[in-house]
Amino acid sequence: MSDGVGRVETRSRVLFDEERPLVLESGARLTHVEVAYETYGELDAAGANAVFVCHALSGDAHAAGYHDGDRRPGWWDNIVGPGRPLDTDRLFVVCANVLGGCKGTTGPGSLDPATGRPYGLRFPQLAVRDLVQVHRALLRSLGVSRLRAAIGGSLGGMQVLQWSLDHPGEIGGAVIVAASARLSAQNIAFSAVAREAIMRDPDFAGGDYYAADAGPARPRPDRGLALARMIGHITYLSEESMRQKFGRRIQDAVEPRYGFDVDFEVESYLAHQGQSFVERFDANTYLYMTRVMDYFDPFTDPAYVQRQVAAAGAGGGAGPAGTRYLVLSFDSDWRFSTEHAREIATELRGAGAPVTFREISAPHGHDSFLFPIPEYHRTVGGFLDALAGEAVAS
Amino acid sequence: MSDGVGRVETRSRVLFDEERPLVLESGARLTHVEVAYETYGELDAAGANAVFVCHALSGDAHAAGYHDGDRRPGWWDNIVGPGRPLDTDRLFVVCANVLGGCKGTTGPGSLDPATGRPYGLRFPQLAVRDLVQVHRALLRSLGVSRLRAAIGGSLGGMQVLQWSLDHPGEIGGAVIVAASARLSAQNIAFSAVAREAIMRDPDFAGGDYYAADAGPARPRPDRGLALARMIGHITYLSEESMRQKFGRRIQDAVEPRYGFDVDFEVESYLAHQGQSFVERFDANTYLYMTRVMDYFDPFTDPAYVQRQVAAAGAGGGAGPAGTRYLVLSFDSDWRFSTEHAREIATELRGAGAPVTFREISAPHGHDSFLFPIPEYHRTVGGFLDALAGEAVAS
Repeated sequence: MSDGVGRVETRSRVLFDEERPLVLESGARLTHVEVAYETYGELDAAGANAVFVCHALSGDAHAAGYHDGDRRPGWWDNIVGPGRPLDTDRLFVVCANVLGGCKGTTGPGSLDPATGRPYGLRFPQLAVRDLVQVHRALLRSLGVSRLRAAIGGSLGGMQVLQWSLDHPGEIGGAVIVAASARLSAQNIAFSAVAREAIMRDPDFAGGDYYAADAGPARPRPDRGLALARMIGHITYLSEESMRQKFGRRIQDAVEPRYGFDVDFEVESYLAHQGQSFVERFDANTYLYMTRVMDYFDPFTDPAYVQRQVAAAGAGGGAGPAGTRYLVLSFDSDWRFSTEHAREIATELRGAGAPVTFREISAPHGHDSFLFPIPEYHRTVGGFLDALAGEAVAS
Repeated sequence: MSDGVGRVETRSRVLFDEERPLVLESGARLTHVEVAYETYGELDAAGANAVFVCHALSGDAHAAGYHDGDRRPGWWDNIVGPGRPLDTDRLFVVCANVLGGCKGTTGPGSLDPATGRPYGLRFPQLAVRDLVQVHRALLRSLGVSRLRAAIGGSLGGMQVLQWSLDHPGEIGGAVIVAASARLSAQNIAFSAVAREAIMRDPDFAGGDYYAADAGPARPRPDRGLALARMIGHITYLSEESMRQKFGRRIQDAVEPRYGFDVDFEVESYLAHQGQSFVERFDANTYLYMTRVMDYFDPFTDPAYVQRQVAAAGAGGGAGPAGTRYLVLSFDSDWRFSTEHAREIATELRGAGAPVTFREISAPHGHDSFLFPIPEYHRTVGGFLDALAGEAVAS
């Protein structure tokens, strides 16, 4: 068993400034964008072995290894490391906190250079395309112009999809896991209720709950954010995994207490998820990221998709092989079910792209993308190995 | 097309008092229990044509017809009326607001005779069995000792099931629709988050948000209750019905607004559901009723179930025919899926009861039990007609 990538640290770079602002899809400009990122493995001399990991709603740049003093590794440590599917003996793996995030990359909690105060809800609305622009700027600054692959689950998969469409030839292999190209009404409904929980919290204060530098500490909308996380968490697990994990077991008691306190184990689990989330996440980022997902709809212009896929296939940009797709879903995922993944595969194939689509059997619901399910890891590893073969052959 | 039952009004009776208190399953006593109820049709001379309707979480006694000035009829008007499946030309239909409710029956918003103040969370915890005791007392006061049938959806079906088990021979036909005999971990999780939303609302004030007679008006935990309703509502609709009803359509606008205000139609719908609910419902009742459902688990003692079913089949109590069961589920219901209904049918059959089980195809999710789906109404009507035949023959 490999020890993984070992000690790592999150670094950061300023990628956009007043002279080179980031122009968003909405037309808004950000004149200071700093990005937190981690890398694992070494970039080869040809700059051809880079793989970008796009994280999901509540993720961050710390995908693998251990920070000093931490007892738990990064959120995707089981797939990133020596001998693992994203094999850091052979690949240069990059992960960055997304734009609008709260773990080191510029977001609604950052200071607005124009006012010197935190943006709050004055931070501009974002699109998946904007998140991708920042990833690309980071890669350029690291000396990477073409990716062996980009991979991501959920919102991460959306980033990979948008990236591959907008920049033909820039990604050799696009691995899109447990994602959606178009949230359903039910998906949007869950997000909407989570946002309402945050925005109705009296401590939300219109998003201006950050302690100003000189001002007193303010309460944060912890109640609302915890509720949002609890709601989200139910949709991340399958009914079956909840049944296996908790059933109807009563928490630290032989007999039910018949009251409104936490009593069933599943209640205690959710309460813990909510509480630990508020300690590490920002409510405004939650609002921005869920809205990014609600509005995501990359296949509305079929002519654009077809043109971009054709450009990639013709070797547009940097590589000879265009973009190959691996689209994965999990059979117990009811947040972004296999129907969502199949739609992605169908649209891409319809535009002429080479797509491997597979539904993996796994019990963990939407969260399955975070688990080391053998068939899943074999499929991802095999896909990346085949890309490496092409890179050598080319 | 029939005009329905026409004008109706909700009446009320005091059924328990200091001399005849209601002793709950927990051992607690209520020394003043008033019940709000409605009746439709006439009780026949033999007192043999009564059907009791048990309502669900957010229902009330007003099942059919119109109150003075109302533009919309009671919540189950499509099934109760002349010529309808619960045919008021032939049946005497009774519906009562449940114990712990907020629509006229004693509940947490009622005055505690011991203190003269509203109970709030000092109201005792309830079990489904307690709700049934109050229904039975109402029927006795109306001169009914045996029911032709009892029918209910969701929490209503739970009441029918518990009633039929505890009082063999008292119900001719038990119609259990879209119910569960044992909430899953996921079911409990949704209820738990809904309760958290209420209890974390600063206006909840530990449940003491009622205006005291002499005191000033207090704000009510409307934010929390609206959130609870929104969460619940997502689980009442199927993903497919949400897709058909809303899709990704944008509310009163050609273009999305890209902000955190309500934008998609499904958001607007949920916000409306939340808002209209707080105008007609009490947050404490929501807490009590969801907890009643969480703890419901009537099949834990198989020997008891078998004994009770045998007693009913032997003509125990009042009738020669024992209790026949009709257990129905809807294929798009993911709150109480067909698995829940099948478990009820299997347990009852295992104890020797005659059970007809049917899964009805309907698109409306859990809410299907409220819709006039032809196969559903035919099945219920046919079952009741057969019971009438038996009543005549006996």
